[in-house]
Amino acid sequence: MDRRSFIKTAGIAGAASALAAPAIAQDTITWRMVTTWPKNFPGLGVGAQRLADRITAASGGRLTIQVFSAGELVPPLQSLDAVIDGTAEMSHGAAYYWQNKSTALSFFTGVPYGMTTSELSAWVRYMGGQEIWDEIYDQFGVQGFLSGNTGTQAGGWFRDELTSLDSVKGLRFRTPGLGGRVWEKLGATVTNMAAGEIFQALQSGTLDAAEFVGPYNDLALGFYQVAKNYYMPSFVEPGLATEVVVDKAKYQALPADLQAIVRDVAQAEYDQVAADFFANDPRALKTLVDDHGVIVRDFPEDIMQAGAVASAEVIADLRNSDDALVKKTTESFIEALALLRSRTETIDLPFMVAREKFLEL
Amino acid sequence: MDRRSFIKTAGIAGAASALAAPAIAQDTITWRMVTTWPKNFPGLGVGAQRLADRITAASGGRLTIQVFSAGELVPPLQSLDAVIDGTAEMSHGAAYYWQNKSTALSFFTGVPYGMTTSELSAWVRYMGGQEIWDEIYDQFGVQGFLSGNTGTQAGGWFRDELTSLDSVKGLRFRTPGLGGRVWEKLGATVTNMAAGEIFQALQSGTLDAAEFVGPYNDLALGFYQVAKNYYMPSFVEPGLATEVVVDKAKYQALPADLQAIVRDVAQAEYDQVAADFFANDPRALKTLVDDHGVIVRDFPEDIMQAGAVASAEVIADLRNSDDALVKKTTESFIEALALLRSRTETIDLPFMVAREKFLEL
Repeated sequence: MDRRSFIKTAGIAGAASALAAPAIAQDTITWRMVTTWPKNFPGLGVGAQRLADRITAASGGRLTIQVFSAGELVPPLQSLDAVIDGTAEMSHGAAYYWQNKSTALSFFTGVPYGMTTSELSAWVRYMGGQEIWDEIYDQFGVQGFLSGNTGTQAGGWFRDELTSLDSVKGLRFRTPGLGGRVWEKLGATVTNMAAGEIFQALQSGTLDAAEFVGPYNDLALGFYQVAKNYYMPSFVEPGLATEVVVDKAKYQALPADLQAIVRDVAQAEYDQVAADFFANDPRALKTLVDDHGVIVRDFPEDIMQAGAVASAEVIADLRNSDDALVKKTTESFIEALALLRSRTETIDLPFMVAREKFLEL
Repeated sequence: MDRRSFIKTAGIAGAASALAAPAIAQDTITWRMVTTWPKNFPGLGVGAQRLADRITAASGGRLTIQVFSAGELVPPLQSLDAVIDGTAEMSHGAAYYWQNKSTALSFFTGVPYGMTTSELSAWVRYMGGQEIWDEIYDQFGVQGFLSGNTGTQAGGWFRDELTSLDSVKGLRFRTPGLGGRVWEKLGATVTNMAAGEIFQALQSGTLDAAEFVGPYNDLALGFYQVAKNYYMPSFVEPGLATEVVVDKAKYQALPADLQAIVRDVAQAEYDQVAADFFANDPRALKTLVDDHGVIVRDFPEDIMQAGAVASAEVIADLRNSDDALVKKTTESFIEALALLRSRTETIDLPFMVAREKFLEL
């Protein structure tokens, strides 16, 4: 082989090496994921970090997700905008935070007297929910996936016992979103405030009551020190889903295997987060009752009933919306819920009722 | 650069290329997965195929899963043995099929009056269930992962109406496993037979009743033609999980990213299969009632109560087992269920009861 051919060969080999390095570099993609949750927030902040780590692990680092907790890169309630404007490639939060973009987004987190964890997944995956969700988010160039669920939440912390629906009149209650609208219809004076302000407001009497998530999260915030009555369940937040949102164009530009990994991990996390809450809520509830003297109470029956009527009104308002997508989402949700209830209330619910009544182990 | 250094450089580049090709070849692994389900069996057979396809897709084909439905490679109830003896690398089925290996395995599918879909996942992932399951399967060199759940099943097809616990005496009922033991305690004459034989036996009167899965699967088998009374719910099969089992040594020899993909997809499928049943059971139930004149009935209260007592006895028998692992599994299950019920029955159940009573949409 002459020097010339060596140069050529070496040149090709060199070119191959030169290509190889950038090819590997191109294959290693780093995405920024902003979240609406404080770092290490039980269930949810922890879940966002775990989802990122699982995508990184399953892709062998080819898609590495860097997590920015609430406020680290953008304020929590600008997480979706950060994906839309390209500041981040992903966000982890709850769809109902973006009601200013479309009130239809509430349905993909959860609405008053709405779906349980299992029912919501069935609607999204098998009854047209995902397709409508895609239609809504397509307007903003993003795509959403379910990424967790808290299960049914707690009804809230009340300074005084509720004896009937009359107790709600004028009650100053911290509860946001559509749930707040329901409580307003029941006669409460509804306010919203950030998590960090609730304790002080309950203590000073500015608030009579507040709801946040459930035992697992509420224990850490110390509400039990200033309000002993812990009411169950939150009929306005029966099974709240979290979402992971991706920049749709960047997502579709990923190789097919990485797209699959993002989808699969998000769905695995839907189960994982629910399992975390199911396992850790009762542990926290036990601590609240045994160590902190919290009294767990059921809402009086007339509040539960009036709550259902008010919830149906709130959902009917959305069905009558002038916004075609809000109307379409609401109709799909109502139809799916009716069908799902025919299973839940014939099979699952009677089992749970009988187990509560009869099983002693 | 002299000729000598060119040779050296070219040699290194050549070695790198020579290594690159086999590395790609080694990376493409094909695994055989045997299943206990007929091909395209609603929910379960379809789920096994989808799980395989998702692993193949998420790994970009580096781990390609070939599916063999019931009987294609080995008889369905030899699926686990096929993994143990190396005929296959994976199996998809239900842990309670392997009670001959350890009765403790029942708990990882579901036991009479046991856990719901969400509760089982919480126990396995956060309350020590997976660790005990690993201990059991370690004896056979395999590893199990949850891979689906049917939700609470239907109670069964009965030729005649049941008016009380007395109606069960002498009833010839097809219902396998621990559920069969419970029905025996209630006075039934319990037999087991393959799915394909049930229809004929019900028609001829050899059987008075039979249970299989739920509306989604039962519709296809045509039981409604020979028994019109469809009783709900199956208190002996409240939330039946499927499993995927892998050869543990081969699994641990996989690169970390492929191990993660198998785990993540199995968990995603736990949610996917449940969603499939939640969405499609009520559709099938509607067809059964509207088109085939099926009468959906609740079991009489005294049967539900006696069923709970008998289930507690069956579980107590397992707790008293001489087999240390059976005892340990049962104790872990009982402790977890007690804690989980303190959430379910305080938060989730009261919501579902109120929704059934009060929500009109």
